[in-house]
Amino acid sequence: MPHIKLSAELPGIRGPFAFRPETAKPMSELAEVLLHTPGSLSMADSELIATFVSSRNDCHYCQTSHGAIAAYHLGGNEQLVLDVKRDFENAGISDKLKALLNIAGRVQQGGKLVRPEDVERARSHGATDIEIHDTVLIAAAFCMYNRYVDGLATWAPADMDSYRQRAAAVSENGYLGILATVTAQAAGSKGE
Amino acid sequence: MPHIKLSAELPGIRGPFAFRPETAKPMSELAEVLLHTPGSLSMADSELIATFVSSRNDCHYCQTSHGAIAAYHLGGNEQLVLDVKRDFENAGISDKLKALLNIAGRVQQGGKLVRPEDVERARSHGATDIEIHDTVLIAAAFCMYNRYVDGLATWAPADMDSYRQRAAAVSENGYLGILATVTAQAAGSKGE
Repeated sequence: MPHIKLSAELPGIRGPFAFRPETAKPMSELAEVLLHTPGSLSMADSELIATFVSSRNDCHYCQTSHGAIAAYHLGGNEQLVLDVKRDFENAGISDKLKALLNIAGRVQQGGKLVRPEDVERARSHGATDIEIHDTVLIAAAFCMYNRYVDGLATWAPADMDSYRQRAAAVSENGYLGILATVTAQAAGSKGE
Repeated sequence: MPHIKLSAELPGIRGPFAFRPETAKPMSELAEVLLHTPGSLSMADSELIATFVSSRNDCHYCQTSHGAIAAYHLGGNEQLVLDVKRDFENAGISDKLKALLNIAGRVQQGGKLVRPEDVERARSHGATDIEIHDTVLIAAAFCMYNRYVDGLATWAPADMDSYRQRAAAVSENGYLGILATVTAQAAGSKGE
């Protein structure tokens, strides 16, 4: 049971988003820039980084929902998402993404753990400053989202199909629509 | 030296904010709602929670800048800020704030560590749902800001006076003006 009174219909981050729209707005906008806006990492790569960090933080809702979004961007390849979570150095991904996941894994443990050689490795495989910046910030931001979701003891669906359905909607439309959706759903469940 | 090319004049989070205004905007707006908007925790309490979490994450820039802002809201009481960082259970603060700092310290370690009895303790001292929500989210958000600042290896000023000066400006005007300030400063340093 959540630690505060949240709409029972809304899983994961959607419950606290409906509870506090004032903070949900910038949190959604940050996700939109980092995970769903052209000009830096591909959507598949940024979602894989988000999924990997959420997995390291043991956040079931975030790793499953962003894993489903990553798989959607990868043409439905759910096995690759599992491979990245389990052992990214030996997964079927680019050397650049492996180097960025190495940086993300260090940020997840603590910002000071990122070494110049970790950044040099990413650069040697073609990573740009903005891609390195976004990798650090995606990892840092999911240390926030994961703690928010679990620190309030929100609930997560057990069936994969509901994640796949929401993943298709988010992959197509991005993160900015979530707030409107959950606010309407929370109002509806109160009979308003 | 920072891991990516940042404006040399801008310390801490201000360098990456100028580098990537698209992410700085929602990050500033989130800080504004959590730390500088009436309707939930007092500004002094929310800044103390931010300072405490940044101290636990060993982020020098964040704990010193938000510690200076907390002290400003406390009428210049820098000793109380140090007391909270060192041993909040025996600091000269309310029982409610002690209970909220206990929750924040658990979120800093991991969201799942918040127990029902931690929340019950806060409630027994008068904490509301929105105050508990904001405590969890401030702690989670500073796990992001701290990792962002240290994960990019930004630099931090050594003298306290520069923090005090910026603290006065932020305490009075809030967080939304920082982005405009750093963008102008970064442009000016390039001779634009």
